[in-house]
Amino acid sequence: MIAPALLDRARIVAGPEVGEAAVRGLAAATGRPVERGPVEGPFVYVGASLPDAVRGADLVWFHSVNAGTDALLRSGTWPDGVPLTRTVGRMGERIAQYVLGWVLAECQSVPEFAAQHARAEWRRIDSELVAGQTAVVHGIGRIGSAVATLLGACGIRTVAAARTPRPVPPGFDAVVPADEPVAARWVVAALPLTGATTGYFGADRFAAMGGATFLNVGRGATVDLGALEGALRSGAVGRAVLDVLADEPAVPGDACWRLPRTVVTSHSAGITADEDIVTDFAACLRELSAGRVPALTVDTGRGY
Amino acid sequence: MIAPALLDRARIVAGPEVGEAAVRGLAAATGRPVERGPVEGPFVYVGASLPDAVRGADLVWFHSVNAGTDALLRSGTWPDGVPLTRTVGRMGERIAQYVLGWVLAECQSVPEFAAQHARAEWRRIDSELVAGQTAVVHGIGRIGSAVATLLGACGIRTVAAARTPRPVPPGFDAVVPADEPVAARWVVAALPLTGATTGYFGADRFAAMGGATFLNVGRGATVDLGALEGALRSGAVGRAVLDVLADEPAVPGDACWRLPRTVVTSHSAGITADEDIVTDFAACLRELSAGRVPALTVDTGRGY
Repeated sequence: MIAPALLDRARIVAGPEVGEAAVRGLAAATGRPVERGPVEGPFVYVGASLPDAVRGADLVWFHSVNAGTDALLRSGTWPDGVPLTRTVGRMGERIAQYVLGWVLAECQSVPEFAAQHARAEWRRIDSELVAGQTAVVHGIGRIGSAVATLLGACGIRTVAAARTPRPVPPGFDAVVPADEPVAARWVVAALPLTGATTGYFGADRFAAMGGATFLNVGRGATVDLGALEGALRSGAVGRAVLDVLADEPAVPGDACWRLPRTVVTSHSAGITADEDIVTDFAACLRELSAGRVPALTVDTGRGY
Repeated sequence: MIAPALLDRARIVAGPEVGEAAVRGLAAATGRPVERGPVEGPFVYVGASLPDAVRGADLVWFHSVNAGTDALLRSGTWPDGVPLTRTVGRMGERIAQYVLGWVLAECQSVPEFAAQHARAEWRRIDSELVAGQTAVVHGIGRIGSAVATLLGACGIRTVAAARTPRPVPPGFDAVVPADEPVAARWVVAALPLTGATTGYFGADRFAAMGGATFLNVGRGATVDLGALEGALRSGAVGRAVLDVLADEPAVPGDACWRLPRTVVTSHSAGITADEDIVTDFAACLRELSAGRVPALTVDTGRGY
């Protein structure tokens, strides 16, 4: 925890990843000047990465403009006693709309109809009703719950795959152990990247998918891409939609482009808007100033 | 109304549009034989059109396998005193998923990402959050309400455009007179085709759309296609998704393929499954046998 008096006199510094509009928004929302670094004396830093100049200085609190903090935490030992908070914004809502959008696009044959239209071809393709189908979601925090809630609105039965025993999470119809096979039309990955989730989706897990469509909106390195390719070729995975890859951006020769029946999108599901950064930073500042631990605090040991 | 005793002894005849699986399903659901015509004596007919042989015979009730009955009613004067019922099935749900699917596909740039993937190209395209946007729905019966309910689940504000004054219909946030311009991101057409709705979407209505995306899941002839082309070229309509056309199927030279920023799908939004025909016919039979007017009865004068 930071002493509220220290927080009051700390300067607010925005890193290079924070655009001018967001800087103005932060100043307006907090009623305090927001500077570009470096600065002297105690300061709060808003950014995506932790430059050495910032790490070594009188940093009292770091607010990440991103929801995922794995890269930030991997960049070095986290400075002792510095709270880390993050921007979630409307990410749950955004990612849920991404997942539902790609689910319905498959059921409505959106790419196929777009191609037929370009060829001036009228050919009947029946749509598929998702109501009554099942989706399994791995990664059942805020984002997984938001995904489940929205899929549920279309009548999809939602099952949380939990790595540790727990009651049914918000938005879900059921919970099962993560290693229990579930017959499902859709498998959604929304896992954070930690030591325990690297390569989590490997050959065994893909082999049990029974032709489901696999969608990854979590982190690319939770997926063994070679195992996914094998499962797509065998039919164990019907289709794949990948918003995240272990190595981004993918170069033209990347193996991901060779995956059959797959679409790779450009890490666009859970974008952070300037207003998200402003809203979440201002909320964290209010909580810290009141001596409370912000709900958006990252456990720097656990990694999320 | 049909006397229940007459209904009890009437034979059930299925037209050529009813497949063998549906015929077996109808027999199983009603516990009565279902024959292929022609037959003698009083009979109930399940089909899509009214052949002369059926029209002239001892027809006591006609059940349409389709939800839209405009073509059926246009084919000649409806026989006096013969109730007409229709199959709606899960059409509301299906059409709602079609509309939401194309709405989210635009916001998630599904066709663009599919094309990028085919080119092995990683290019950032930000997604668009639909929450907080507005959709206006013309045609606010069961299907319009189902569309509004599902759009509402994604945080879209839904406005019913009503041709006659009425309270806010189920699933909607607001109701406005149909001729009142509303600033909206989406305009959904779900109108039945009647004398009053032919050419309903003409130059004036399109000119007031302010760049919205226009989706037609009702009937093709409610749209003046030349006026839509002008509005797409001027930008008054941003994009169009048309599941229905006045002339279907569209031939390769059809004007619809020349519309800019448009996708024509093949009347696939509201397909009727065999189970829908069976379920809805059985429900109507139960209601008529109990001396009640089925909820799926068509007003043959009004046309829907």
